[in-house]
Amino acid sequence: MKLLIINGPNLNLLGKREPDVYGNKSFDDFFADLQFHFKDIELAMFQSNIEGELVDELQQASERGFHGIVLNPAAYTHTSIAVADAVAAISIPVVEVHISNVMDRERIRHTSYVSKNASGTISGFGLDGYKLAIQGLKQQLKA
Amino acid sequence: MKLLIINGPNLNLLGKREPDVYGNKSFDDFFADLQFHFKDIELAMFQSNIEGELVDELQQASERGFHGIVLNPAAYTHTSIAVADAVAAISIPVVEVHISNVMDRERIRHTSYVSKNASGTISGFGLDGYKLAIQGLKQQLKA
Amino acid sequence: MKLLIINGPNLNLLGKREPDVYGNKSFDDFFADLQFHFKDIELAMFQSNIEGELVDELQQASERGFHGIVLNPAAYTHTSIAVADAVAAISIPVVEVHISNVMDRERIRHTSYVSKNASGTISGFGLDGYKLAIQGLKQQLKA
Amino acid sequence: MKLLIINGPNLNLLGKREPDVYGNKSFDDFFADLQFHFKDIELAMFQSNIEGELVDELQQASERGFHGIVLNPAAYTHTSIAVADAVAAISIPVVEVHISNVMDRERIRHTSYVSKNASGTISGFGLDGYKLAIQGLKQQLKA
Amino acid sequence: MKLLIINGPNLNLLGKREPDVYGNKSFDDFFADLQFHFKDIELAMFQSNIEGELVDELQQASERGFHGIVLNPAAYTHTSIAVADAVAAISIPVVEVHISNVMDRERIRHTSYVSKNASGTISGFGLDGYKLAIQGLKQQLKA
Amino acid sequence: MKLLIINGPNLNLLGKREPDVYGNKSFDDFFADLQFHFKDIELAMFQSNIEGELVDELQQASERGFHGIVLNPAAYTHTSIAVADAVAAISIPVVEVHISNVMDRERIRHTSYVSKNASGTISGFGLDGYKLAIQGLKQQLKA
Amino acid sequence: MKLLIINGPNLNLLGKREPDVYGNKSFDDFFADLQFHFKDIELAMFQSNIEGELVDELQQASERGFHGIVLNPAAYTHTSIAVADAVAAISIPVVEVHISNVMDRERIRHTSYVSKNASGTISGFGLDGYKLAIQGLKQQLKA
Amino acid sequence: MKLLIINGPNLNLLGKREPDVYGNKSFDDFFADLQFHFKDIELAMFQSNIEGELVDELQQASERGFHGIVLNPAAYTHTSIAVADAVAAISIPVVEVHISNVMDRERIRHTSYVSKNASGTISGFGLDGYKLAIQGLKQQLKA
Amino acid sequence: MKLLIINGPNLNLLGKREPDVYGNKSFDDFFADLQFHFKDIELAMFQSNIEGELVDELQQASERGFHGIVLNPAAYTHTSIAVADAVAAISIPVVEVHISNVMDRERIRHTSYVSKNASGTISGFGLDGYKLAIQGLKQQLKA
Amino acid sequence: MKLLIINGPNLNLLGKREPDVYGNKSFDDFFADLQFHFKDIELAMFQSNIEGELVDELQQASERGFHGIVLNPAAYTHTSIAVADAVAAISIPVVEVHISNVMDRERIRHTSYVSKNASGTISGFGLDGYKLAIQGLKQQLKA
Amino acid sequence: MKLLIINGPNLNLLGKREPDVYGNKSFDDFFADLQFHFKDIELAMFQSNIEGELVDELQQASERGFHGIVLNPAAYTHTSIAVADAVAAISIPVVEVHISNVMDRERIRHTSYVSKNASGTISGFGLDGYKLAIQGLKQQLKA
Amino acid sequence: MKLLIINGPNLNLLGKREPDVYGNKSFDDFFADLQFHFKDIELAMFQSNIEGELVDELQQASERGFHGIVLNPAAYTHTSIAVADAVAAISIPVVEVHISNVMDRERIRHTSYVSKNASGTISGFGLDGYKLAIQGLKQQLKA
Repeated sequence: MKLLIINGPNLNLLGKREPDVYGNKSFDDFFADLQFHFKDIELAMFQSNIEGELVDELQQASERGFHGIVLNPAAYTHTSIAVADAVAAISIPVVEVHISNVMDRERIRHTSYVSKNASGTISGFGLDGYKLAIQGLKQQLKA
Repeated sequence: MKLLIINGPNLNLLGKREPDVYGNKSFDDFFADLQFHFKDIELAMFQSNIEGELVDELQQASERGFHGIVLNPAAYTHTSIAVADAVAAISIPVVEVHISNVMDRERIRHTSYVSKNASGTISGFGLDGYKLAIQGLKQQLKA
Repeated sequence: MKLLIINGPNLNLLGKREPDVYGNKSFDDFFADLQFHFKDIELAMFQSNIEGELVDELQQASERGFHGIVLNPAAYTHTSIAVADAVAAISIPVVEVHISNVMDRERIRHTSYVSKNASGTISGFGLDGYKLAIQGLKQQLKA
Repeated sequence: MKLLIINGPNLNLLGKREPDVYGNKSFDDFFADLQFHFKDIELAMFQSNIEGELVDELQQASERGFHGIVLNPAAYTHTSIAVADAVAAISIPVVEVHISNVMDRERIRHTSYVSKNASGTISGFGLDGYKLAIQGLKQQLKA
Repeated sequence: MKLLIINGPNLNLLGKREPDVYGNKSFDDFFADLQFHFKDIELAMFQSNIEGELVDELQQASERGFHGIVLNPAAYTHTSIAVADAVAAISIPVVEVHISNVMDRERIRHTSYVSKNASGTISGFGLDGYKLAIQGLKQQLKA
Repeated sequence: MKLLIINGPNLNLLGKREPDVYGNKSFDDFFADLQFHFKDIELAMFQSNIEGELVDELQQASERGFHGIVLNPAAYTHTSIAVADAVAAISIPVVEVHISNVMDRERIRHTSYVSKNASGTISGFGLDGYKLAIQGLKQQLKA
Repeated sequence: MKLLIINGPNLNLLGKREPDVYGNKSFDDFFADLQFHFKDIELAMFQSNIEGELVDELQQASERGFHGIVLNPAAYTHTSIAVADAVAAISIPVVEVHISNVMDRERIRHTSYVSKNASGTISGFGLDGYKLAIQGLKQQLKA
Repeated sequence: MKLLIINGPNLNLLGKREPDVYGNKSFDDFFADLQFHFKDIELAMFQSNIEGELVDELQQASERGFHGIVLNPAAYTHTSIAVADAVAAISIPVVEVHISNVMDRERIRHTSYVSKNASGTISGFGLDGYKLAIQGLKQQLKA
Repeated sequence: MKLLIINGPNLNLLGKREPDVYGNKSFDDFFADLQFHFKDIELAMFQSNIEGELVDELQQASERGFHGIVLNPAAYTHTSIAVADAVAAISIPVVEVHISNVMDRERIRHTSYVSKNASGTISGFGLDGYKLAIQGLKQQLKA
Repeated sequence: MKLLIINGPNLNLLGKREPDVYGNKSFDDFFADLQFHFKDIELAMFQSNIEGELVDELQQASERGFHGIVLNPAAYTHTSIAVADAVAAISIPVVEVHISNVMDRERIRHTSYVSKNASGTISGFGLDGYKLAIQGLKQQLKA
Repeated sequence: MKLLIINGPNLNLLGKREPDVYGNKSFDDFFADLQFHFKDIELAMFQSNIEGELVDELQQASERGFHGIVLNPAAYTHTSIAVADAVAAISIPVVEVHISNVMDRERIRHTSYVSKNASGTISGFGLDGYKLAIQGLKQQLKA
Repeated sequence: MKLLIINGPNLNLLGKREPDVYGNKSFDDFFADLQFHFKDIELAMFQSNIEGELVDELQQASERGFHGIVLNPAAYTHTSIAVADAVAAISIPVVEVHISNVMDRERIRHTSYVSKNASGTISGFGLDGYKLAIQGLKQQLKA
């Protein structure tokens, strides 16, 4: 099983940016943990601050052999119909993850264009949300 | 570790009600699966159609020895500040679960009074969402 | 044919409460009239001020042998998704009745979560609305 | 007793237009049934696609000897204050009927200018709604 | 000077309809008063319940020799862009009149599509508003 | 007959401020015209930029012998409940005047707290609106 | 192939009304051009200021042998559910045309009840929009 | 004089729940203080987390000999029309109390269905608000 | 203890203005009662119709030796951020009072800029509300 | 004549993505058809998922010799002011095309930032919309 | 060059009021700094808590020889159309200044009636904003 | 001191695009002026039409030695949470600049996601706004 993690804008700053909201671990360190934890899964990771590059990556994932996607669209969650359309357009499942509890933050973060098209949504578990997302994807892919 | 699952209104009809939305397995059957799957956790289950009984149950869980709660508030997700206040008032973590993808249903199901106070939210994974919630709670309780 | 009338909160005060809006006949007296008028139908009546008990009653009606329900959700018309979900979840027809003309009252009474799932809605005929509802149910059950 | 049925725009297409919503019986056929069913009532029927002609008809009904009106304003339900004003301006009772369950259709059909001024509203019973409306009017005229 | 008074829907009921709002004088009687009062002006009057006939009348007024129009659009004030467009399209001045104080009535009567295009608006003076409108038109036509 | 004209903020700039909207005649010059035109009426004029001074003036008008008031609340039309309350609190009639067509200007000028309590409203006739207001007041005071 | 052009309110003033928005060519002159340009198509034209007559015309077009309709609902675009319902009710395709760019005009012109039911929408091309609409209809009827 | 205090959901946690908002005194302790302070009044207290039980209690208070009610509807303030209807339906005065300053909390706590029907509202005085409410009730009952 | 009562616009008309809403006692008479009732408190009273004078008075109260303020902002409750800012800016407690039940009046009276910054709010008790406010202030100043 | 077609996000999936909405022909195949159909026009095509690259392309089109642009902004229609600003900033005409009937889809697709600045808009004709757009551009460029 | 600084309500408390938002320097001290810093400019300062006095001051500034105004309308920013109208009515430039970052405060401070008419707006720089405003005015007056 | 100017979409067209709004000087020319004017500051400039590239540039500015940023997000002001998040995520101050008075333009330009996180905002001064921004940044960096 081959899964792709796609992270949206500013998540490359993880560990540096607003540590009280996002924790102080970089995503690279956390990704190593994830790979260690899910030894039976081939994991890849992509990050971009550019909305359209997230669209590109979503579109190509299936052809590149991925069976499912864990997507944290970050700010584009709330503003990008293009990303949401890409999620709807592809045939492999996409689980939406948010590190923080978006409903306990500003109002502009309470809406998601993506959720409607995602095969599941997880938020508020910190980085552990990615683990749950992978477990959720595994169960969806087995079913 | 002792965890309590609290289900809100109409979830006692699971397996009978709108099977295209909620599947056709009763919660009792699924609960047996859960117990089998999480052998190291003492699991209990409570369901009520009465908003205030969900509040009662949430309030008493800690005193009755539970370390965490998986809560599916169903219709009260969108209408009950009382349930949301109870979640905020108690000290043990509460993970919010929705079986269906609520954002892909009618607009009245897109808001949640509870999410803001939950320690995490999971939706759209079908009954598997309860499994992910228990795994999420375990990680939160260990941290 | 066996039909159940379910009355929501404060309808037990009928005849006492705001007689200019609801008239001054108690529902018990009116219910006797109804039974006299519909001699060929077995009629039962249930009232509760508790949202979840209305949900319980709706869920169990079919198993208890009722072929249809006349529901006056009163205040829960405008605030209860739980009651509306129960109406959607059960297989026997539910006709929604309002004694007063809700559209000629305060704005908060202009919306109904229930109507969408009801097999018909009748409002503004005073207590006669229950008669029309039973006649409507009879025609639906015959069809 | 002499009652007038007034049908609004596109109801002349009944039986042809969107049969899954409105059924496949023409109103003329149904009107014959109605006359047969209510032998003691003199029934008349008027249909127009023109808002102002509905206003004219409502205004003149009383002088032409009608004791009550069954009005299905169709699309003008949601857009015509002129029709609603005419209903308020005349002294005989007007019962509003909708064939389909308007609350289970698009949002633009959820509001009615007319309801506030009607002596009762019935919706979702298909053509049988006209029967219930006539029965309701009879009871109002006797009271 | 030749002026045309155009009255919208239900104003033909003046004197009969809701006398506490509109007074109990018919417009015909009042029109005779007006003609007596403005002896130097050739006055004509048109009433229709049909939106499009109001549009027709507005369009043709100038060609029929009228120098200005007093328009009471009644219910169409709040719902007709067609009437408002006709007012904008013609070159002679149109003064908008409302008999009652529309801002002291229901919210749906607080908006006017017409006002923006009118050369002046007068409301709340009862039938005297027509007198003021004619005086206003006279001043505009002299200027 | 003794009438008071009350002008709100920035109307002291009349003739200087935005002449394309308000014309280029000062109110003092115009007031002389008015006095000449209504020789049988004792006219007084008050202007203030201070909301509360308009309230004071409205409150005292009756005791100072005025029979009616012509009020142009200018910017306070849209923001002052205090002025609107004063209009409601006093027993002599108050006619509201606007020089420009407020409905053809920015959206913030489309609402009036005052209108609801005024005995009539006139807008869009330029300074002539004051003449019409005085004529309207005369008719109301005679009735 | 036989096509019907239906024009809504005030379009009979084309060439006279607001020439900077609508141009200064009358529709009759333009219609002659159209007939010359589409020699292989039998074209007819209907205009009315009355909403219900547009509904009548739409309803009867198919029976009168037309294969498709070009509809410019003008002001009724934004206010008529009756016209939109007629478009939905008939089986031949209806292309919606607007001469001006409605999205670059006032906010009230930004919504269309009709578009949802039209087989295509064209706006902003001036009178050439009718040509494009006919070409579009031709392609739809061939497919 | 006999008065009833009715407390809504989660107020049984007083002294435990969010002490920075609600203080750290239990309601039982405070109730003893109240009884000591108002020796001439027979005080009773009822708390429930169930909306309908609050309705029941409100309905029965008068028959059980109470002359007035102090009601803190807590979360149901903002969501329960049923409680508000019960307040309107009964004839003894009901004073609404809120411990915290609800207008200085989240937006969902800024609205109250109950206030409109209460004979007075007091908020932001902490538990002392109950004292003021009893004093207010005493004055209303004497008047 | 020295307390200041500040009354906003139109409250100088108390006893004259809308006696069904505000009663028919002047505030001066009532103030004498208050002084008699609270003999141990030095009471002063200030009224102005001018928003900024209320701000001035609030700002200077502490320096002039007052320990607390009872503020009835009247119409400025709903429109004045300046008054609300002054309440926030000063260090002595301010209790907000409304004579009538503002939530049972027009919608524009349902919001208060002041409440958020007040140390407590009391409404609907008539003039007795001032007594409760003074009692509430006393308790706050003792704590 | 040289025209540029610019396609926005996810249109590179045409033929693969949601064929019931967008058809099953790839844009490359369709583009070959277009070139064959418009032999006298030099056509070029550009697609990007990146909002800013669409802006770049729009800005440079005129310098690269294009006389007009056919723009299908896809998801950016509803979210990109940057694209709309680019359309406004350039001097050659831009026709906006949508393949599907956007008004018959979700609410988020009912608004367009671009339309206001476009020289024309065409939607709902499937891929044929591009043909109509080119014909429309031709007519605009000739005029 | 002669410039006038106009400060709105509660700014006389600067240095005392909410020092975490506004700093702890009084405006008088700061004004001395400003005069020292801009030795070539004749600076004057006016503060009032009264909306209408700000209007008076704005109106008279030009006649009193000022070439430009720095205006901090404080709370009236969000509620005063009268102040905004005065800014529009006068011919000398007015720069709007806010000490705090109004967009990072409560929602009611996010709107400004004044900005639209100001020749520039500066916010969030603390008292230094006045310096920038004077520099900005200098550049505008030179241009 | 080293400062970075970041310009958003379409600002590369400065001097060409809508000169009545943005002036007719190119930004390159203006940048030379800026460098000449601020000889003691090392200035750099970056422009992109791509939202994510603005995010990249903001993220890297500090590491590349810049002490502060002047950001004109142009269209992304109103649509980009990603850019606003980047401003919040970095530790050096960011001053937001708008050339035109955005509050005097279309409604969609009245909101800014960025302002809340900026250390100051300047708008309406034309290109001089950049000068003021640099002066403001200098003062912030000194403090």
